[in-house]
Amino acid sequence: MTQQLSSPVSLTAVDAPGQPTPTPELEQLYRGFERELLVPLWTEIGDLMPVHPRSRAVPHVWRWQHLLELADRAGHLVPVGRGGERRAIALANPALGGKPYATPTLWAAIQYLMPGEDAPEHRHTQHAFRFVVEGEGVWTVVGRDPVPMRRGDFLPQAGWNWHAHHNAADRPMAWIDGLDIPFQYTAESQFFEFGRETVSEQERTTPERSRSERLWGHPGLRPVSAPGATPGTPLLNYRWADTDAALADQLELEAEGHTGVVEPGHAAVRYTNPTTGGDVLPTIRAEVHRVRRGTETAPRREAGSSVFQVFDGSGTVTVGDASWRVGRGDLFVVPSWQPLSVRSEAGTSDSDSGALDLFRFSDTPVLEALHLDRVEVSG
Amino acid sequence: MTQQLSSPVSLTAVDAPGQPTPTPELEQLYRGFERELLVPLWTEIGDLMPVHPRSRAVPHVWRWQHLLELADRAGHLVPVGRGGERRAIALANPALGGKPYATPTLWAAIQYLMPGEDAPEHRHTQHAFRFVVEGEGVWTVVGRDPVPMRRGDFLPQAGWNWHAHHNAADRPMAWIDGLDIPFQYTAESQFFEFGRETVSEQERTTPERSRSERLWGHPGLRPVSAPGATPGTPLLNYRWADTDAALADQLELEAEGHTGVVEPGHAAVRYTNPTTGGDVLPTIRAEVHRVRRGTETAPRREAGSSVFQVFDGSGTVTVGDASWRVGRGDLFVVPSWQPLSVRSEAGTSDSDSGALDLFRFSDTPVLEALHLDRVEVSG
Amino acid sequence: MTQQLSSPVSLTAVDAPGQPTPTPELEQLYRGFERELLVPLWTEIGDLMPVHPRSRAVPHVWRWQHLLELADRAGHLVPVGRGGERRAIALANPALGGKPYATPTLWAAIQYLMPGEDAPEHRHTQHAFRFVVEGEGVWTVVGRDPVPMRRGDFLPQAGWNWHAHHNAADRPMAWIDGLDIPFQYTAESQFFEFGRETVSEQERTTPERSRSERLWGHPGLRPVSAPGATPGTPLLNYRWADTDAALADQLELEAEGHTGVVEPGHAAVRYTNPTTGGDVLPTIRAEVHRVRRGTETAPRREAGSSVFQVFDGSGTVTVGDASWRVGRGDLFVVPSWQPLSVRSEAGTSDSDSGALDLFRFSDTPVLEALHLDRVEVSG
Amino acid sequence: MTQQLSSPVSLTAVDAPGQPTPTPELEQLYRGFERELLVPLWTEIGDLMPVHPRSRAVPHVWRWQHLLELADRAGHLVPVGRGGERRAIALANPALGGKPYATPTLWAAIQYLMPGEDAPEHRHTQHAFRFVVEGEGVWTVVGRDPVPMRRGDFLPQAGWNWHAHHNAADRPMAWIDGLDIPFQYTAESQFFEFGRETVSEQERTTPERSRSERLWGHPGLRPVSAPGATPGTPLLNYRWADTDAALADQLELEAEGHTGVVEPGHAAVRYTNPTTGGDVLPTIRAEVHRVRRGTETAPRREAGSSVFQVFDGSGTVTVGDASWRVGRGDLFVVPSWQPLSVRSEAGTSDSDSGALDLFRFSDTPVLEALHLDRVEVSG
Repeated sequence: MTQQLSSPVSLTAVDAPGQPTPTPELEQLYRGFERELLVPLWTEIGDLMPVHPRSRAVPHVWRWQHLLELADRAGHLVPVGRGGERRAIALANPALGGKPYATPTLWAAIQYLMPGEDAPEHRHTQHAFRFVVEGEGVWTVVGRDPVPMRRGDFLPQAGWNWHAHHNAADRPMAWIDGLDIPFQYTAESQFFEFGRETVSEQERTTPERSRSERLWGHPGLRPVSAPGATPGTPLLNYRWADTDAALADQLELEAEGHTGVVEPGHAAVRYTNPTTGGDVLPTIRAEVHRVRRGTETAPRREAGSSVFQVFDGSGTVTVGDASWRVGRGDLFVVPSWQPLSVRSEAGTSDSDSGALDLFRFSDTPVLEALHLDRVEVSG
Repeated sequence: MTQQLSSPVSLTAVDAPGQPTPTPELEQLYRGFERELLVPLWTEIGDLMPVHPRSRAVPHVWRWQHLLELADRAGHLVPVGRGGERRAIALANPALGGKPYATPTLWAAIQYLMPGEDAPEHRHTQHAFRFVVEGEGVWTVVGRDPVPMRRGDFLPQAGWNWHAHHNAADRPMAWIDGLDIPFQYTAESQFFEFGRETVSEQERTTPERSRSERLWGHPGLRPVSAPGATPGTPLLNYRWADTDAALADQLELEAEGHTGVVEPGHAAVRYTNPTTGGDVLPTIRAEVHRVRRGTETAPRREAGSSVFQVFDGSGTVTVGDASWRVGRGDLFVVPSWQPLSVRSEAGTSDSDSGALDLFRFSDTPVLEALHLDRVEVSG
Repeated sequence: MTQQLSSPVSLTAVDAPGQPTPTPELEQLYRGFERELLVPLWTEIGDLMPVHPRSRAVPHVWRWQHLLELADRAGHLVPVGRGGERRAIALANPALGGKPYATPTLWAAIQYLMPGEDAPEHRHTQHAFRFVVEGEGVWTVVGRDPVPMRRGDFLPQAGWNWHAHHNAADRPMAWIDGLDIPFQYTAESQFFEFGRETVSEQERTTPERSRSERLWGHPGLRPVSAPGATPGTPLLNYRWADTDAALADQLELEAEGHTGVVEPGHAAVRYTNPTTGGDVLPTIRAEVHRVRRGTETAPRREAGSSVFQVFDGSGTVTVGDASWRVGRGDLFVVPSWQPLSVRSEAGTSDSDSGALDLFRFSDTPVLEALHLDRVEVSG
Repeated sequence: MTQQLSSPVSLTAVDAPGQPTPTPELEQLYRGFERELLVPLWTEIGDLMPVHPRSRAVPHVWRWQHLLELADRAGHLVPVGRGGERRAIALANPALGGKPYATPTLWAAIQYLMPGEDAPEHRHTQHAFRFVVEGEGVWTVVGRDPVPMRRGDFLPQAGWNWHAHHNAADRPMAWIDGLDIPFQYTAESQFFEFGRETVSEQERTTPERSRSERLWGHPGLRPVSAPGATPGTPLLNYRWADTDAALADQLELEAEGHTGVVEPGHAAVRYTNPTTGGDVLPTIRAEVHRVRRGTETAPRREAGSSVFQVFDGSGTVTVGDASWRVGRGDLFVVPSWQPLSVRSEAGTSDSDSGALDLFRFSDTPVLEALHLDRVEVSG
């Protein structure tokens, strides 16, 4: 056997708890481990089995204006086509070694499509969604169903469905893509298949509503013709008008003295799969939170990680030791077991409508499916 | 913002499919991405979203005799106690950068306890098991229940249960530990708590059967007093005598012309949680396979990874491009989507009983829970 | 022992298949059975274990005008109050011995409330719903949540919730109640508790939307504050506007050449519990079917029974050997395993909008939960 | 419409709570209801919706010796064959109108097969089991798998499996059959199909163990070749040796100061489906209870009904207001919501081993599946 460990077994400090005293014999033993491709637990246990999650990721914020400018420049320099597949530019958490991972399990990217452009069809096991913070004009064709995208729309897309995009407008459009790419990279469960380079003329139509919405977008109703539960949601667009109304209803109920909000001044809805009542995607949870002007949410930490995008309003976000002022479009990550608190405040612009609206996605369904979820709320 | 990517965005070869032509403007764009902690999808998609899983791990075999010798040397040099916790020495896949990971999701280690030694009590969210290829004399105390360990016994232990070990014999004992440490390292779901340094005299008893076996070890029967389904199995020891009988029964049924085996000459049983009928642990599947002398199994590949240990017999194992002769105690890994075939053959020693018995554990429950499992069998 | 069978063991015809020849000894044996409260299987098996379900119920239709007239007369003669609880008048299938059972498992009644009247609060384990074929002005107070009732609204109400009704209008209002009373009568699982005689002034308000709708009536969205899955739906009103839109969408999709309808010209939606995606109530399925003018549905039979009410339009219904012309409000039952076919036709009145809309409820969830469901569609 | 209610709507006593004052107009209204096949709720609600279950069944005991004598006489008078199908004689609860129902949902019968006799093959949707209180020599052939029957064996048989019996011994054999015939009679979900009149010679073999036991009878192990979960158990015989050992283990654990028993001196095991960990049959729960000599169990009542058979020992059973001395083979019923208490006592015979062993089956899985289960334990 000529293979060897690419990095040697770390030697242990003399005074580390539970570590043996360094001796020539111990040194020889450790070299023996290396030769045989072995690593002792006792030198690694603090990192491998911490008292609570110590995320390799760090809290970080990305400014929407910077993303947009770079995406627009890419729009002029980088064509979209077979092979590269998408003009998507991913957030790389500064502590994850340059990998395009927002967190150890989640991918978040800005995608950009120029007027008249097509992104070719493909499918993959990675679960995905789009969320639109501004703009319109692109249709995502899932299967053969063109789905419109407009500000506030959430478009989940369960793995292994064919999909393409086309921009039917005369302006570029940007949105964010969320996927479980890092998770599946670890699970090594990825499959990918190329589809057609361009969708047919018939699918390039621009209907007001997708067929999926016409079948599945009616509250509490399902088509009798449809089969039973599916792991991913069959509803391909969750319109902003519905999300907005649901959040407004919760705050009004609170004002009338009824239950419904998560905590005072803090409404929240979760996107669900109508065939199961559970999360929209097997590996990704998605929610929208509305924090009333002047409200500060209780610090809360969870096992597992999240990515947020400010949909509207402005405020101050605190994640662990980090704190930022945020406004529309800004994205930030909350690593595992780091407490998050949000304060809704007036921004510098007059356009603020009063509340801070936050889109959130997380890997919680993975942890819940495996009974590994934990939450702690302060105060 | 002064943070930067620790490794620069990889530049793309001129002729890669779907990549833009390198120009000064493109170069400038890529530098802009780096400054903003962004990575374009189009340069990474082949690695991130492969056509099928291309495991970062490689097939590899570890020889039991080498492990045993090193473990014994560690037994004389490295004390067991609070802080280091366990004298466990982990298999480090040669392609995983020196990390103590047998595969990207699974940990496998040899653990070794000297006569009279105790391993202190602790608990953790990581799911674990022990499997004993030879020897006896150690009891694992789970909760307050001492569980004996003997050749062929499988001892699963769901996360967050207190556990300790003590060697009541006058000889050292070795066994293997399997855990989901790498998976939970990625999911960042780990919690850990120290317990008592030594278990009480009462728990240092050495009963023939654990209390868990007396309550849960009767086929098809459950105590009425017990609560409903639990994520991990309440049965703490699966005895070899039962496993052996189940495998023998399958081969006898085959000989009589009935169904039951996986394929001709190949019997297999899966350890299950009697409260659910599913896998013993939320993140780990465990099985024993018996391949009749002279039989070669059909090549089979799965999404997700496995670790095998030869329990008895000898033969030749082929994983992807690698092939080894293996005998009792040898451990090998099967990375995701690499085909595995096993041939049972007479070994060099006379002691071979005729069949090749393989213990296997894998991350399949994770993939199944998230609807990411895939299997392909040749021929 | 002095007890005896109230009806003697039936003697078997001489020539019945598999029956013993009558003899004095046999006669004596049968008398012995009776004394010991025993019944031989061989004399009863044809009735007890038929080749397929032979319902004790028969197909039957009840005319809405007759029900309404009798209910109105009851409105003037029978007060509503504690003890009698509800002015509900139940359909009694003519073959079920005078019991108020529409089918062996389902209860269906017209309920009637005079202007200003209250029906007192109570709760019971029986699962219930209301469906409104015409009128408005009554609010059902569930818990403390007043829920409006209007034409086309479906109001499910899972067991053991407090509920009362009050008529805030200046006209009487009628609607139908559906419950699983006969099923629970057999299962002997019924509990019942009296609540307040009158609801408070605050609950006698007449909001446009119930609180449950404000929390749960947004498609694909759930409040984050709510607990997990509940056996019965938390959504207390399914509005006609949504149901109508969903049915119209299906027929439009069909006209455009897409999937979605059950069969040509036949759209159908099922009311679902948004926390599970399954049926609204553990024991009752509810659906609305729309049959395009001129369409005849394929004969279909199911294990388990159904009750239908015509919501709109007119047509001819065939159930087994029975056939009736039906119009708005008419109710009919489909016994287990009897084939049903529906033909949508113009009625005698001009008011027909063109399609036949049928509300349906059935005991299917019971059969499905126990793996006893079967369906057969002809042609 | 000429049909009429076969029994007239019951007239209400003047002074019943919540009932209208009888008047000629009311009388006329009630006659109108009858003509239209309607029944008012207010006259029936006390019976239909009681405050708690008031079972139509009554507690009753059947003496094994009487059953056995009558069964033996039937063995000489009534042939077994196609049409009558089985020499089974059912318990008819004295309050259920002569129907062969032990309770409103459960069927219990003694079945009797003479030496050399065959019971022909058939299948039905009704779920069934056999339990053997004494004797041996019969094999039940399920599918093509001959399953031996011996004292203490429990043989569940999920619906729609082919099955036949043959007595290979030179003596008659008796056992009890339990089925959900009354439940399915109400649900009207029954299908039935005739199979072969006699099983083949190959299936008339008398193996020591069934094939199902060889595949599924190993604790905590399942064949990898088998498909996933099945509604009914694939294990066709649960041997007394295992049941006895499990009960003995619980009482020993109690004696050692550990948990495991239901209450002091009262051990109990439930038969489970190894593919789900749940009940053996979708509609029937089966358990064995062992009550230590001198122990009296706490009164306990449940929604839903049970049938018990004394397997060994003797004692006094109290069900509601009834109380009996019971011994081996005696059968008794516990109607819904009637409290049961059992006292284990020395019998008149010397053969008593000391504990009272009770086999029990119930309709609990039906109630649990529909969220209708309730239990109350006194003291």
